[in-house]
Amino acid sequence: MRTPDEHRALVEDFLERLAAPDGLGGLERAVHYALAGGGKRIRPVLCLAVGEAAGADPEGVLPAAAAVELVHTFSLVHDDLPALDDDDVRRGRPSLHVEFGEAVAVLAGDALLAEAFRLAAGYDTPEVVRELSGAALGMIAGQYADVTESEPDLLRLHARKTGELFGAAVGCALWVARVPPAGQAPWRAFAAEVGLLFQLVDDVLDGDGYVRVHGIEAARTLADTVAGRAEVRLEELPADTSVLSELVQVLAARGV
Amino acid sequence: MRTPDEHRALVEDFLERLAAPDGLGGLERAVHYALAGGGKRIRPVLCLAVGEAAGADPEGVLPAAAAVELVHTFSLVHDDLPALDDDDVRRGRPSLHVEFGEAVAVLAGDALLAEAFRLAAGYDTPEVVRELSGAALGMIAGQYADVTESEPDLLRLHARKTGELFGAAVGCALWVARVPPAGQAPWRAFAAEVGLLFQLVDDVLDGDGYVRVHGIEAARTLADTVAGRAEVRLEELPADTSVLSELVQVLAARGV
Repeated sequence: MRTPDEHRALVEDFLERLAAPDGLGGLERAVHYALAGGGKRIRPVLCLAVGEAAGADPEGVLPAAAAVELVHTFSLVHDDLPALDDDDVRRGRPSLHVEFGEAVAVLAGDALLAEAFRLAAGYDTPEVVRELSGAALGMIAGQYADVTESEPDLLRLHARKTGELFGAAVGCALWVARVPPAGQAPWRAFAAEVGLLFQLVDDVLDGDGYVRVHGIEAARTLADTVAGRAEVRLEELPADTSVLSELVQVLAARGV
Repeated sequence: MRTPDEHRALVEDFLERLAAPDGLGGLERAVHYALAGGGKRIRPVLCLAVGEAAGADPEGVLPAAAAVELVHTFSLVHDDLPALDDDDVRRGRPSLHVEFGEAVAVLAGDALLAEAFRLAAGYDTPEVVRELSGAALGMIAGQYADVTESEPDLLRLHARKTGELFGAAVGCALWVARVPPAGQAPWRAFAAEVGLLFQLVDDVLDGDGYVRVHGIEAARTLADTVAGRAEVRLEELPADTSVLSELVQVLAARGV
């Protein structure tokens, strides 16, 4: 079994070599700028680790894992736009629209989304695209609620903006590993806990979202509970989930 | 064989009933506003007509045809944005960002693109998504060249911004009709002529693009030549292409 760091190295390498079929011309530079931001790659690592635990070859899961990261990056690029969250800095660097201008940022986000589906369509089953398009729609709906509602329901918002893509990271891996639908429920229950854990810890680190409404102690307590539930889910799975358990611990420890 | 008008009625009905799986909340209203603009639906009609000529049931081609129209509409919504072409009017109505604001326009375009892939992934073959994602990437690259280059190569730009999606409209129909790859080349040659014809006539109507460089007479002459070539391509096809021939004539007559 590969460690999370080994999975991450696979993802970095794949993303670096990624090129659109006919080339995107100058837009490719903006796309790679967005992808090279040095994020934690948690979603694709989760995808690879679930795939391996479920019996798939990591090399075979890699395009799906990269597609998940592209959908995530697409959402960051568009959410950062002046008309939306208006964030000038992303992962310590100028956000894409600051570096390349707003027009290029819109188009680079579009290209990331389209490229994600191109990668997902490389599999012989359409399930990977179904998983990813459903998650993308959920994220977009979540972002819409975020920018238009004055008091959105936070846990529901989390579920859409973060949870859907964590669900797809796991779901894509299950389809690639050919886990039949009847056997997917416990894996998906694990995904739901991991997505919620990730968002709660993010809120603790940013003093945002759940923390702003319920306070930091309540957020930490809930995160611990959720991490515990994720571990219980893993124990129920008929697989070697040691690497996934390590991932849960890494995610939970971010907030301490 | 259904007439182009009958195909168009099928498309209108399908788009009206279209709803994202879990609902997009308030964003659905913006998505339907964009889709209800009363466009000519040339791409989905072409998709349905090719599908029927190639032996597919139009009902079965409909999701692919709608997906093509969604990708087209996505590109209009994003291209109209202030940072890109800054168009306030689209098909005689306020463009989406004027009616709903820029944030919603970015998200509605994203939702249209994601929904297109959700529809395309409803088929049991991933070829429809492959076709559509390749075309979307080509269109995005074309729009990038359009906003960043001072003197872009016009015919190459046409091929990307318009031709790629006409190609996908035909290509998706071929996959749904299960035309084997070895038999697709003449259909695709026809698609290339139709896409070029459409763009040339558009330029004649708008006094834009090719017309601005070569003059209106040269554009009209080239459009006639291209329409003739499209008809020749149809004659080569082992199918009843009478409806497609009618479509070519309708497209050519727009500019007269």
